[in-house]
Amino acid sequence: MSFDPATLVYDDAGLIPCIAQDADSSEVLMMAWMNAESVTRTLETGRVTYWSRSRKSFWIKGESSGHVQKLVELRLDCDRDCLLALVEQAGPACHTNRRSCFYTALRNGEEVEIMTPMA
Amino acid sequence: MSFDPATLVYDDAGLIPCIAQDADSSEVLMMAWMNAESVTRTLETGRVTYWSRSRKSFWIKGESSGHVQKLVELRLDCDRDCLLALVEQAGPACHTNRRSCFYTALRNGEEVEIMTPMA
Repeated sequence: MSFDPATLVYDDAGLIPCIAQDADSSEVLMMAWMNAESVTRTLETGRVTYWSRSRKSFWIKGESSGHVQKLVELRLDCDRDCLLALVEQAGPACHTNRRSCFYTALRNGEEVEIMTPMA
Repeated sequence: MSFDPATLVYDDAGLIPCIAQDADSSEVLMMAWMNAESVTRTLETGRVTYWSRSRKSFWIKGESSGHVQKLVELRLDCDRDCLLALVEQAGPACHTNRRSCFYTALRNGEEVEIMTPMA
């Protein structure tokens, strides 16, 4: 079936969450938001393009930092209200310079940092 | 630092997205929502407990289907507005009986089913 971004289920703000996962290591790198046009641009350019809710603008991941996400494959879930982007991530995905944004684990009721910033 | 679920960043509905990832295979299984009490219950019981937006009630994953998610580790992201649950998933995570909800890939502009329901 031919894919139309308009058939995805967006929230009241017209956004859909997108999980970025390292296509090689399967590490979950981050989660950010897309609107329909972000989805279209991501598929057309092969560069993962989110919608920045704070800046209210398109956010071509890595455009300023160089830490680009090259799309390997975009997948959607059963409810069509969440996306999974398999990516090749250049350097850190997180703005803190860590490979993944999920660097804090909860262990025995404590927050534990399990990842250090990349050199 | 001791963890307090109230320090997470929830949306206007008091919810935070939680990505469930298979702790062994690293496969991303699903994404659903939690409120602060879901987070507390998940940590206390070791059974991943979402908040069902449609039913407006707690949703102990697998309570009716038997396809439970045993929590291995809960992680939070840099913005504290997204969770990653590493889980042991019994059987399929998806209500369609597929292992993962992300069984549809976009390939050459087409929707392609890449996973069949489990036996």
